[in-house]
Amino acid sequence: MITRAECESLDDKDPLRAFRDEFRLPPGVVYLLGNSLGALPKRTPERVAHTVETEWGRDLTASWNKAGWWDLPQTTGDRIAPLIGAGPGQVIAGDSTSVNIFKAVSAALPLRPGRRVIVSDLDNFSTDRYVVEGIAKTMGYEVREIGWGEGAPGLDEALGDDVACVLLSHVDYRTGARHDMASVTARVHAAGAIMIWDLCHSAGAMPVDVGEADFAVGCTYKYLNGGPGAPAYLYVAPRHQEVVQNAICGWHGHAAPFAFEPYYRPAAGVRRFATGSPPVLAYAALNASLDIWERVDLERLREKSLALTSLFIELVDELAPASRSGLTLVTPRDPERRGSQVSYRHPEGYPIVRALADRGVIADYREPELVRFGFAALYLRHVDVYDAATALAEVIESEPWRDERYRQRLTVT
Amino acid sequence: MITRAECESLDDKDPLRAFRDEFRLPPGVVYLLGNSLGALPKRTPERVAHTVETEWGRDLTASWNKAGWWDLPQTTGDRIAPLIGAGPGQVIAGDSTSVNIFKAVSAALPLRPGRRVIVSDLDNFSTDRYVVEGIAKTMGYEVREIGWGEGAPGLDEALGDDVACVLLSHVDYRTGARHDMASVTARVHAAGAIMIWDLCHSAGAMPVDVGEADFAVGCTYKYLNGGPGAPAYLYVAPRHQEVVQNAICGWHGHAAPFAFEPYYRPAAGVRRFATGSPPVLAYAALNASLDIWERVDLERLREKSLALTSLFIELVDELAPASRSGLTLVTPRDPERRGSQVSYRHPEGYPIVRALADRGVIADYREPELVRFGFAALYLRHVDVYDAATALAEVIESEPWRDERYRQRLTVT
Repeated sequence: MITRAECESLDDKDPLRAFRDEFRLPPGVVYLLGNSLGALPKRTPERVAHTVETEWGRDLTASWNKAGWWDLPQTTGDRIAPLIGAGPGQVIAGDSTSVNIFKAVSAALPLRPGRRVIVSDLDNFSTDRYVVEGIAKTMGYEVREIGWGEGAPGLDEALGDDVACVLLSHVDYRTGARHDMASVTARVHAAGAIMIWDLCHSAGAMPVDVGEADFAVGCTYKYLNGGPGAPAYLYVAPRHQEVVQNAICGWHGHAAPFAFEPYYRPAAGVRRFATGSPPVLAYAALNASLDIWERVDLERLREKSLALTSLFIELVDELAPASRSGLTLVTPRDPERRGSQVSYRHPEGYPIVRALADRGVIADYREPELVRFGFAALYLRHVDVYDAATALAEVIESEPWRDERYRQRLTVT
Repeated sequence: MITRAECESLDDKDPLRAFRDEFRLPPGVVYLLGNSLGALPKRTPERVAHTVETEWGRDLTASWNKAGWWDLPQTTGDRIAPLIGAGPGQVIAGDSTSVNIFKAVSAALPLRPGRRVIVSDLDNFSTDRYVVEGIAKTMGYEVREIGWGEGAPGLDEALGDDVACVLLSHVDYRTGARHDMASVTARVHAAGAIMIWDLCHSAGAMPVDVGEADFAVGCTYKYLNGGPGAPAYLYVAPRHQEVVQNAICGWHGHAAPFAFEPYYRPAAGVRRFATGSPPVLAYAALNASLDIWERVDLERLREKSLALTSLFIELVDELAPASRSGLTLVTPRDPERRGSQVSYRHPEGYPIVRALADRGVIADYREPELVRFGFAALYLRHVDVYDAATALAEVIESEPWRDERYRQRLTVT
């Protein structure tokens, strides 16, 4: 088995190691939830303070022009674009992921008149499912569900000439399993449907290429470290931009917002998907983080991410083998099919997560019975992986489920 | 005419004068756009820094429970409620005003099945009009327009048994004219329709009482000083809460969000109108401001607001009478019918606003030909009003429209 010293040596040779210094990480903590809420970049507090004290406090309304507040959805979107294989003018930042899913799906459906089915993933993150369910009910569509599991109906069975659009997550939030985007998009297009990707669990963890996809949405508070509830984003393929409609026709998406025209006339390009006033402080934090992302080599990031997740799987195999620990790996062993997280099923998953937190190893729990470990390769080290795997083995041996403290469910798990 | 010394004396006797010290106002500036972007409360930077550095940077995901992030839409909504005459559990904070208008109107329409008309105000703020227009197109409704102007179709003519809902602004964003909320709501209800109020230009400027209204929306970045793009809010009358649907069915509005159930089941009460992850930094700024609002006597605020706007009208009457200045007052002279702003029409409105800014008097321009002066009574003084009126008279005499610099339009006017 690999030693901790060998992990230290791998860290010394890590070409991305300098990035860790750009983040504030609480001392004594191994933070494995960068897939849920990214760590704080060291320069973010200063950037946010500048926006609060100078842009807002001193310059007040002049900042709409002077500090570029009005254009934040587009300028920020243009900075996110390279992270998902998109170009300038193709991405707009704003609202929450849920609102952007709503915008994307409602814009996609009219592109395929006569087709009345939306294909959704049984295992997709709940908001993706709920938003689609809501649109289907209101607009008179049928939802056809597919799954990843054995026996679940697959994508190809679901695709027919009645399918208007397909919404899938690139990486599954529970298992960390990863779709081959290009191949899925091609199959969906071959069936004449519109492809919408949710990139929440992949953008910032690996190179992503929207390729031929029609729409994509994602958040920026996970791997992209934009801060809690940071603005989400929406990609719209250039070929659709001048024909699609934003269902929520706010004035920020108008062609001439300061003409205060009586009727709606959509702005050119992706700007029509803007709606209301942008939460400027949230954009400040996100842009501080994007200053880091401009310098990240995503191929190297992916290599390190796979090295970390593979190392974790190997260590847990040795230190807490399934036969003894009760841990069942649900993440694909094949690195190509994996995102940047590792998840185990365990009947006592919840108390395990709570006991790990007491030892400074921060993971989370997802129904049903899943313990999730996220690996943000930008600031995690091989020694962190070593320490986490060791802690997991120790925690399971301590049988934390016997401790009432660890069984109590918090509001947010 | 009143003297500047007399204004100073009025300020000395102002029972609200201490509030000015709670705001950072740029020196040498008379800021008359608190109706557009409220000034920065002095304690906001510290509060935001705490959320960034401690809640996010140190406590990371633990803050969803520990710092109450999960409940921010409701806890913040409960703090806004007293400012609009609502009770706990009736207001939810989040998203933009535009998104909340979308939610309110789409929730209102199914409450009146068979009725296919939405009554909208010709002079309403553009986003209110556009969002209604978009919903009408998508959902197959007709928009019936009313106006404030002479000859425009009035509310009573528009109301019929085909009207599902009415969306109006309490205070007009251009003229500052104010509706009598109780009377309008009663007339709309008598016609069997749902009443939705937009409170953007009244909440925080005067006591507001949603009364019998069905829904209300508003922003918090104007009079409420929540910061640029701060979370908006939505009021839902308790009698509707268990029957209405949120059109954007995000997981934050689910009854059991951490059960990750496959299908949508709305949360009890107003929480069902939550959608995606709340922009936590923006809520921090807003809550710092709400700490001030807890201590404001809204009746006194209204008295002072009317004193300031009346004083401004009187001074401009004397210093820059219509006959000489070309300024036409479009705000009602009757204080009862007025919000907290004063607007004048002038064919050279835009260069006037730019020249005023050069003299440290910050107002804004709105099509067509309107110069708007907002009076945030929490931090403005009588001497500010005096200085603004004097500056306006001087600026007009200087004929700023002859100066090319002042004619150039900025992106955001």
